[in-house]
Amino acid sequence: MINNRINIIKVGGAVVEDKERLNTLLSSFTQLEGKKILVHGGGRAATRIAERLQIETKMVEGRRITDEAMLEVVTMVYGGLVSKNIVAELQARGINATGLAGCDMNIIESVKRPVKDVDYGFVGDVKQVNTAPLSMLIDNNIVPVIAPLTHDHQGTILNTNADTIAATVAKALAKNYDVTLTYCFEMPGVMKDPDDSTSVIPSINKSSYSKLKEQGIISGGMIPKLDNAFDALEQGVSRVIITSFADIAATNGTTITR
Amino acid sequence: MINNRINIIKVGGAVVEDKERLNTLLSSFTQLEGKKILVHGGGRAATRIAERLQIETKMVEGRRITDEAMLEVVTMVYGGLVSKNIVAELQARGINATGLAGCDMNIIESVKRPVKDVDYGFVGDVKQVNTAPLSMLIDNNIVPVIAPLTHDHQGTILNTNADTIAATVAKALAKNYDVTLTYCFEMPGVMKDPDDSTSVIPSINKSSYSKLKEQGIISGGMIPKLDNAFDALEQGVSRVIITSFADIAATNGTTITR
Repeated sequence: MINNRINIIKVGGAVVEDKERLNTLLSSFTQLEGKKILVHGGGRAATRIAERLQIETKMVEGRRITDEAMLEVVTMVYGGLVSKNIVAELQARGINATGLAGCDMNIIESVKRPVKDVDYGFVGDVKQVNTAPLSMLIDNNIVPVIAPLTHDHQGTILNTNADTIAATVAKALAKNYDVTLTYCFEMPGVMKDPDDSTSVIPSINKSSYSKLKEQGIISGGMIPKLDNAFDALEQGVSRVIITSFADIAATNGTTITR
Repeated sequence: MINNRINIIKVGGAVVEDKERLNTLLSSFTQLEGKKILVHGGGRAATRIAERLQIETKMVEGRRITDEAMLEVVTMVYGGLVSKNIVAELQARGINATGLAGCDMNIIESVKRPVKDVDYGFVGDVKQVNTAPLSMLIDNNIVPVIAPLTHDHQGTILNTNADTIAATVAKALAKNYDVTLTYCFEMPGVMKDPDDSTSVIPSINKSSYSKLKEQGIISGGMIPKLDNAFDALEQGVSRVIITSFADIAATNGTTITR
């Protein structure tokens, strides 16, 4: 499997929206050897453009309510502005990247989330990742750059969480590749004390995770992130890393294993 | 060369912006047999979004002046909104399409237009079309949908006229394919009398073109379109067709040959 390793790097909107941070991330991504995929968010840029278009941003538990006007915004911003700029920057660094939304080559099909307590609008829950076109690109040394947009295969684009896209693509590719899934963000990793950057927990497994939760060291928004990580590991992903955008080789981040 | 035929269809912003017309075009495009590429504009949508963002649209001789704010708009609109919606609609029709800007897979490199009488801003003149990734897609039954954006390979996206993109891609592919380049728009073809839709000229060659120009039958904006068509034919494109978006098989349009 050594020649079949692939790194899937997910980078969030806070890094994407900051030119300096994005440059740091893209330079590290460029240096990363072997097969790789970049999955990006873009929420902050979407909120900024929506504001300028006088479209109100409504969030429920950190998730964006996507009405028709907001769908237009995220399609433009994630699929156009953020995607093409990342791809152009990677091309400048010698990486032959290509920007993809879920509709492109039909890589990610989803279903519109059913309305329960909350109507999220045009939000898609992933139904299927089609790995064949991704493999074709990767085998041709083309680096997929995936935007957090999917489609219902009936003509409608759906907004889909970028963390979920990264995890779902990782799980699908795990059938044929040795996958490392890396979430990079503004923090250096999972920390014992969020105010102390030297308190990064170097590795977490299922049993230490239970203890850390009991002790209240891991709480809040980190819990769904880690739950997703363990789910990915259970579905064949080799390792999940949570690290800084400035350290995607993860010399100082947190490695999560079963 | 029979199995090596390819149709390159260019559709402008006036059709793209009108949902009903776009549906008509996409249905005809779906029915078109064999290898195919769609090149789209999106100028009207860009003007609409720019207006909502309070960014002024400045045109010189039909060409958009693209300052930094407008570059953001066209990147969003052409590369995101228009491209992804066309791709999602084609997927719904069973066509495995993928949206591409010039930076994607490095398909179209350009140079920023030098400032002479007019400073067009972030506008690119095509330097090179890389046909290998396009052939890879086409050979894998993936239909490229190309947005009128290129890149300078130094990290900057450049706005590029969609007619030019279509012609340049056609000429580059003519080395390996039997290329038909079709420009489709709101009119049924090149007309003797612009007010009489039955006056379409079925075919034009270089000598009849000279006569039609002398007689003043062909004038104005049609001249650069036809000059580009003859240039494409001289550089190996087999035929150029100017026809209605509702008739891309061109049973009633104008065919231009050498």
